[in-house]
Amino acid sequence: MKLAVLGTGEVGSNLASKLVELGNQVMIGSRTSKKAQDLAKRLGKGASGGTFSQAAAFGEVVFNCTHGDSSLEILKSAGVHLDGKVLVDVANPLKFSNNKMSLTVSNTDSLGEQIQRAHPKAKVVKALNTMNYKIMTNPGILSEDTDVFICGNDSAAKAKVTEILRWFGWKRVIDLGGIDRARGMEAVLLLWLSLAQKYGFAPFNYKIVRQSA
Amino acid sequence: MKLAVLGTGEVGSNLASKLVELGNQVMIGSRTSKKAQDLAKRLGKGASGGTFSQAAAFGEVVFNCTHGDSSLEILKSAGVHLDGKVLVDVANPLKFSNNKMSLTVSNTDSLGEQIQRAHPKAKVVKALNTMNYKIMTNPGILSEDTDVFICGNDSAAKAKVTEILRWFGWKRVIDLGGIDRARGMEAVLLLWLSLAQKYGFAPFNYKIVRQSA
Repeated sequence: MKLAVLGTGEVGSNLASKLVELGNQVMIGSRTSKKAQDLAKRLGKGASGGTFSQAAAFGEVVFNCTHGDSSLEILKSAGVHLDGKVLVDVANPLKFSNNKMSLTVSNTDSLGEQIQRAHPKAKVVKALNTMNYKIMTNPGILSEDTDVFICGNDSAAKAKVTEILRWFGWKRVIDLGGIDRARGMEAVLLLWLSLAQKYGFAPFNYKIVRQSA
Repeated sequence: MKLAVLGTGEVGSNLASKLVELGNQVMIGSRTSKKAQDLAKRLGKGASGGTFSQAAAFGEVVFNCTHGDSSLEILKSAGVHLDGKVLVDVANPLKFSNNKMSLTVSNTDSLGEQIQRAHPKAKVVKALNTMNYKIMTNPGILSEDTDVFICGNDSAAKAKVTEILRWFGWKRVIDLGGIDRARGMEAVLLLWLSLAQKYGFAPFNYKIVRQSA
């Protein structure tokens, strides 16, 4: 599949690496294309680098792995190239000040919804934002199967993202509904931080447990 | 133990019932004492009813099971009787409008912190707010052991609450830190709602899964 990964941080690098390993053609995007090209060189055959806009134009599915506080501005630069695409929003609207984390948008709105409103012709699917980047593409490192949440307004887009999640090894994919459910998926970062600090940022994830059948 | 349960809704009724069953002396509190006395009569020996203020005066540990949107006002009426007490805050600052749920305080503050600030001499411990009331006192109804989170500024108070949670059958109690961690514990309700709607409000809870040792 032709895929785009916007962002060259830990999340973008890890996702791009796994997607290349799985045999996809992956274009990585960065602001000036320099960092994306450097990363593509390291990842070898199947990987290429370009600007955010070039990468968005290339991918059938586009992963937003930019920092949440600049995602809207970066996606704006990719503009029309996102129309009709499945846009997987992995970002979180995090802000750090005085060693405290908060969200720049929350409760009655979310980054996922902001992105969907800014790109009404893109099919935004929020996914993978609730966990450490190492787990995203390798859920098997945890001692039990855990859950990955998705939400979005387009069922076919969610089916495509679910397929990609299965490639990574995810067995438990929970569809929470429309893109407004991103409010809950992003808010959970406030709990995530307390747990991450408690565990020294070692990987962990949530498993939803229900009643016995 | 002499305990107080403020509130006669599903959460308060269920907690009071279990605490009486476990052999405690439980005073239930309601606005005019009428509902509390009616409930106490149903629960039988060990239960009594009074106003919020009377119940707070009675209990060594006080459970706030009032609706989050009126908790501050109700606790104000209990005032000085909360000084020195362990105040277990089970409430959530939920607001419903147009069939949408949001939080009345979130992200950079929480109900738990508001209560602690309003009652600086009380030892506020946030606990049990992240789940359906049926699970609170009966975690064994789920198919696996799950996690209950607590937070608060006073270690002895958290130890006492942990002891009570053990009575209920909780094996996995996760101390998240100071009362400011209530932000994450309350924010998770935004995710909880999506899951609860998906599962038709059947009980579920979170289990934190980490890497194998």
